[in-house]
Amino acid sequence: MRSKVYELKKKIKDLETLIDASLVFSSTLDIDALLNIILQKAEELMDAEASSVFRIDEEKNELYFITARGEKGKEVKEIRIPMGKGIVGWVAQHKKPLLVPDVTKDPRWFSGVDKKTKFVTRSILAVPLMVKGRIIGVAEVLNKRGNKKFNEDDLEMYLALANQMAIAIENASLYKELDELFISSIRAIVEAIDAKDPYTKGHSARVVEYALVIGEGIELDKETLKDLELSAVLHDVGKIGIPDRILSKPGLLSEEEYAYMKRHPEFGAEIVEPIKKLKNLVPNILHHHEKYDGTGYPMGLKGDKIPLGARIIAIADSFDAMTSDRPYRPRMDINVALGEIKKNRKTQFDPELADVFVKKYGQQFK
Amino acid sequence: MRSKVYELKKKIKDLETLIDASLVFSSTLDIDALLNIILQKAEELMDAEASSVFRIDEEKNELYFITARGEKGKEVKEIRIPMGKGIVGWVAQHKKPLLVPDVTKDPRWFSGVDKKTKFVTRSILAVPLMVKGRIIGVAEVLNKRGNKKFNEDDLEMYLALANQMAIAIENASLYKELDELFISSIRAIVEAIDAKDPYTKGHSARVVEYALVIGEGIELDKETLKDLELSAVLHDVGKIGIPDRILSKPGLLSEEEYAYMKRHPEFGAEIVEPIKKLKNLVPNILHHHEKYDGTGYPMGLKGDKIPLGARIIAIADSFDAMTSDRPYRPRMDINVALGEIKKNRKTQFDPELADVFVKKYGQQFK
Repeated sequence: MRSKVYELKKKIKDLETLIDASLVFSSTLDIDALLNIILQKAEELMDAEASSVFRIDEEKNELYFITARGEKGKEVKEIRIPMGKGIVGWVAQHKKPLLVPDVTKDPRWFSGVDKKTKFVTRSILAVPLMVKGRIIGVAEVLNKRGNKKFNEDDLEMYLALANQMAIAIENASLYKELDELFISSIRAIVEAIDAKDPYTKGHSARVVEYALVIGEGIELDKETLKDLELSAVLHDVGKIGIPDRILSKPGLLSEEEYAYMKRHPEFGAEIVEPIKKLKNLVPNILHHHEKYDGTGYPMGLKGDKIPLGARIIAIADSFDAMTSDRPYRPRMDINVALGEIKKNRKTQFDPELADVFVKKYGQQFK
Repeated sequence: MRSKVYELKKKIKDLETLIDASLVFSSTLDIDALLNIILQKAEELMDAEASSVFRIDEEKNELYFITARGEKGKEVKEIRIPMGKGIVGWVAQHKKPLLVPDVTKDPRWFSGVDKKTKFVTRSILAVPLMVKGRIIGVAEVLNKRGNKKFNEDDLEMYLALANQMAIAIENASLYKELDELFISSIRAIVEAIDAKDPYTKGHSARVVEYALVIGEGIELDKETLKDLELSAVLHDVGKIGIPDRILSKPGLLSEEEYAYMKRHPEFGAEIVEPIKKLKNLVPNILHHHEKYDGTGYPMGLKGDKIPLGARIIAIADSFDAMTSDRPYRPRMDINVALGEIKKNRKTQFDPELADVFVKKYGQQFK
């Protein structure tokens, strides 16, 4: 009777662990954060030396590591395994779990990954990640700690955990896909606006690229970086409101035309303003033509009074303008343009951000 | 000893139920589907006659029913409760659960909802829905079946369930918010394109409205309806590629100008084409100027060879054009325009869809 009670209590503990895990897994829709949580939890709960999650690349019929924790985690990020190959490939193909207490005795064992990672695998527990009958990946834990071997109890626990991992990964992936759809749709429309004028074709995409060089250079957090990206995509959206005869005029603009052209940051802000969730972007769009010394437009803001995103976009925008052909002048050489950015630090540009861009983009370009 | 084992077994059953529920709750990011699942599960697991979920309207400091199942479900969709009022308001304010075995003996009980719904509440179990320490709503079950009363065990179970309900609701809400952000951002940009020409201001938004009248009229499923909405939003996005001098020409277009203007569906398709997840929309955009008798453009498709979405948008688009002012003619009266749609069924428009629009929009307009 005593052992019966002991057994039931162990079962309760396991179930409680699973419930905790399910809450932890559903606590984020950020796929990168989620994968780290999943790998950490799997290692901890399964008492394993390492843990991996493989996704399926349906086009190539391959599995790939999304990420791997454990001591050698960093080295294995890019490993790909053909469907059907090795333990993981077998699990993906058969949609069945596999408990391999000693890999050296299993003919399916493929030692290629160990050679790359210098990790010595002894035992593996691998389970398919299934969502509504569809396989979305494979999860595995390697080497039970304390030189023990994974057993049937471990398998049962890991299978239950896999149900929860699979659904959490699926949800976070759906969220990521929608987010990518959102930004790529806006980019597509903005690119079409840019392409109206052959001289600005691709402009917004390049401004995004340059702005991110600065944003990553000053180590903005993930969320601020995303706002910066979207602000850069949309910085010129107000040009929709500028008539073609001004926008694509082959010669220099008249004073009146120029005055109208200068209203595009306001028009852009007006377009984005009504969207509550994009409120953060409005200042970046509105002020991307301000200058650090206060001589810019529309408000003549000075120094740090100019929002950070707008100061970044100003550099990216000017750099792209200088390095693109114009009807009235050819493009500038990249090093000459970087020199111009440097020369105009403090007057036109935030000096620190200008330095970051010149350094980081200069490195990248070499 | 026997009762100890019995108790442990019951605990195991409860925990297994919770794990099942967590998988069921995370199986969808569609908030409406999720709420139905949650209400049904709560009724079933708590053995309750009815179940509700309230969300918090932070601006108004009120709680509102999102939906309610149970026999009187339909009647209570719109009920709002001020923060702090009644059992539910108390739970929201104190962020604590409340077990009310007999509502007639609790001074917090607010009988207003019963009066509206004609449901007779005897006992209530209400719990706060918390995500990361923040309250996002309140869930309650009403009247334990078989004339029993909810007890402390029920409370414990419902609290555990509430953790999972809360996180699932939060995730589905985040997904919905992103989806709304996606569509509203595209709409905002498209509206700015429409507004370039005062005669087409608001055009795309109205085409969406009319297209949905038809789509709902023929009972398209949720997903197809979403594709239709997005296709309608984007049907004229190709006008970005048409120069202002043609797009906003006050008089009639020359033959050459008209030929160029007629390319806007192709330009639109080209903008959307590269976005994999929007592939479904391309035919609707490309063919929205085809005519049912094959005399339209760009490909002269006939009858059912024209994609359904394009046939719907063609009607919506023409109706808006007729009922909007043009530089060369004033807008048509709505009934006259509906008559035109009817007259051109079979030649210009899919006859069945035309009939649906004339009937449904006619009703709505009266």
